[in-house]
Formats: sequence, C-alpha cells, structure tokens
Amino acid sequence: MRLVLASASPARLAVLRAAGIEPVIEVSGVDEDAVAAALTDPSHADLVAALATAKAEAVLSAIAQDCPDAVVIGCDSMLSMTGPDGPEIVGKPHTEAVARQRWASMAGASAELLTGHAIIRLVDGTPDRRVAGVQATTVRFGTPSEAELTAYLATGEPLLVAGGFTLDGLGGWFVEGVDGDPSSVVGISLPLTRRLLAEVGVSVVDLWTRQPG
Amino acid sequence: MRLVLASASPARLAVLRAAGIEPVIEVSGVDEDAVAAALTDPSHADLVAALATAKAEAVLSAIAQDCPDAVVIGCDSMLSMTGPDGPEIVGKPHTEAVARQRWASMAGASAELLTGHAIIRLVDGTPDRRVAGVQATTVRFGTPSEAELTAYLATGEPLLVAGGFTLDGLGGWFVEGVDGDPSSVVGISLPLTRRLLAEVGVSVVDLWTRQPG
Repeated sequence: MRLVLASASPARLAVLRAAGIEPVIEVSGVDEDAVAAALTDPSHADLVAALATAKAEAVLSAIAQDCPDAVVIGCDSMLSMTGPDGPEIVGKPHTEAVARQRWASMAGASAELLTGHAIIRLVDGTPDRRVAGVQATTVRFGTPSEAELTAYLATGEPLLVAGGFTLDGLGGWFVEGVDGDPSSVVGISLPLTRRLLAEVGVSVVDLWTRQPG
Repeated sequence: MRLVLASASPARLAVLRAAGIEPVIEVSGVDEDAVAAALTDPSHADLVAALATAKAEAVLSAIAQDCPDAVVIGCDSMLSMTGPDGPEIVGKPHTEAVARQRWASMAGASAELLTGHAIIRLVDGTPDRRVAGVQATTVRFGTPSEAELTAYLATGEPLLVAGGFTLDGLGGWFVEGVDGDPSSVVGISLPLTRRLLAEVGVSVVDLWTRQPG
C-alpha cells in the first residue's frame, strides 16, 4: 500500500521522508477560492478541513489506476493571528515590505497554526473510507533585531510561505517555541495523520519504507 | 567567522544545516562521567550546562589554529521523567527489551527535555567570552499500539538515543506535541543558540552560509 501526498510542498515531503515514508506525489490543482466560496460562514477549522478534503478528492481519478490500493492525504494549513476584529488569517507576504510589516506584529507575539488533513482510502481503485481532522498549534515568535530581520527577508525564504516564517528553515532562529505538534507547523502533522490512518484501518508502520536497521 | 560544533550528532548537524549554517565539526571526546563526578549534588540543569561547557572547552586547542576567529558551541541533552523518587534521567535504552519497558511508562505521558549549550568566542585564537544556558521543553508522548511499538523498535532507531525516541525520525509519529522549542528536542536549540551568540557579540545571521535568494 502506498501513501499518496496530494501536495507540491517540499516541506511536507521532507517531513514524511524523515519519518520513514516515501510518498507518491500527485498535485491537486484545486481552486482554493472556489472551495472557500462554496462554504457559508465557515470557521477557520472548517475551511482547512474543506480545502484538505477537496485536494484529496481532486487527485483520486489521476491515481486510482496506478495506485488502486492506497491512502490519499490532502493537507491545508493556515496561520491565524488575533487582530483588532478577532482572529485573522495571515497569508503569504509575497513582498519584503509586507513581510516586514507582518513581523512588526508577530515579533514577541503568538499565532495559531491550523493544519487540516483529509484521508481517503482506495480499495481496488474505489474510494472506501474518508476521514478528516484538524490540529491547532500555537507558535510563539521571537524578536529578531532590525539587522536580523533584514538579513532574513533578503534570503527570500519567508516571502512565499503562509505567515512569513518557516520553522524548518532560517525562520527557526526566530521561533521561541510551539505549544502543540511541531510537524503540523511544518505542514503535515505526523500524530494527526497516524490517528486518521488508523480510522481508515491502516497502521502507519505498514507505510514505512525504511528498512529495519 | 565560523561556527564550530563540538558534537558528533548527525541530528544537531541537520538542524544547523536546515537553519542555514554549515558548521566546522570537532568532536570533543569528553569523559562525561568524570565531569559529572566533579560536581557536588548538581541539578539536572547544572549537569547539562557543565557537560556542554566541558565539550566546548575540550575542542579549543584543536581548532584555535585553523579557526582563530570562531564561535564554539558545546551541547548536551537529557530527558527526565518523574519516577517514584522524583525526576530521573532517562538514558539510551541500548536494547529492545529496555526500550519496550521505557515506552510502557512513556506512552501517554510527558517528559522534560533539558538542553544545555555553552558558547566560547575565539578572537585571534584566544578565548574571549564564554556563556552558557539551558532550555527545558516538555515532550508529550502518544500511545503506540503493540504492533506499532514492535515495528518501531525493530528499526533500531530508538535504541541509541536518549529517552528511546527521536522527534526528527520515525519517533515523530508517536510524539503528540511539545511545549517549548522543538529544535532543542532534536539536540540544538536555535533560539537559545541565537541568544547566547548575541551575548558574545555575534549575530546569528553573520554565520549563515546560505546565499540570499
């Protein structure tokens, strides 16, 4: 049985590989705005779960022939911070100016990282069981100096990631700690994935490709 | 200026590389039992700090000529769990039988990971400033099934690591979360290292070897 990862994220792939799984990669190309627009007043948790589900569903037809017995996982992550009008989703900054502005609020503060996963088990090429779940983890940011922030932004690393930071890259220097699952902050929660796999009757150890030492 | 890592740990090296630093590796060969024996009734925090300091000091003469302007970092980590007589240090299990016994207590429970770092700044080959610090992080373990635990132990991965688990390997499936700095659990705390570097007048960004994107 293979794990199919419906995501192009190199960070998610790295987490799975470090944890003993070499997944099949099948990128979904879901229209995230359309998924969000179809929901009526969703909570942030509803939204990440719906997006993760849409991504997993979207790759089924493409992989059913090559991987008829598989578990497909869709993933979505959002960082939310408390703004003047309540919790707000913090997206990718894209530019240095926006990233610098974000860090002015993030420095010394906390944010909540929501990670949603949807798992679909395929049996003989047909969807058998479907589950989804959401994990919330608090991230506590450090306070980079002006020179540190300038150097960090100049690398380009924070510009194209949600929230403008990475725990698993240069941004790790500026995260004081987390309260919750660190793998969920990188993009795929190992303990949540393990629980969801068990709900569809699959033990994670049966997906390990690393050989016993 | 170079960072000299006084440790043979591949996990520590991987954390530093992911965070943009390619350190010089100089393994210390410190007699840990002798360092511990020289202390009178030390706390666990005193012990990790003393061991980290001893490791950093031990490599100075070996690297002073090749790296006269450098920061040397020594690291030590311990996992402690609350036993019947108070907190007890949990070492490497070495055998499957001991690891299985440990996991019987660890499953569903929490432990405290103490990480100590000592930093010595060398200027023109001479020790200039010395600092040390300790970081404590709580690790909350999941509950592997009998079959999962058997498969995990069979890989050999948990046998040669303190506490019988790794956050950055297969063990990541069985850690529900942490409360504190995840990099400290892997073996080198990025935020603590950044603070200690600042105390000896070095900004971590000046040690980054990754080029701006």
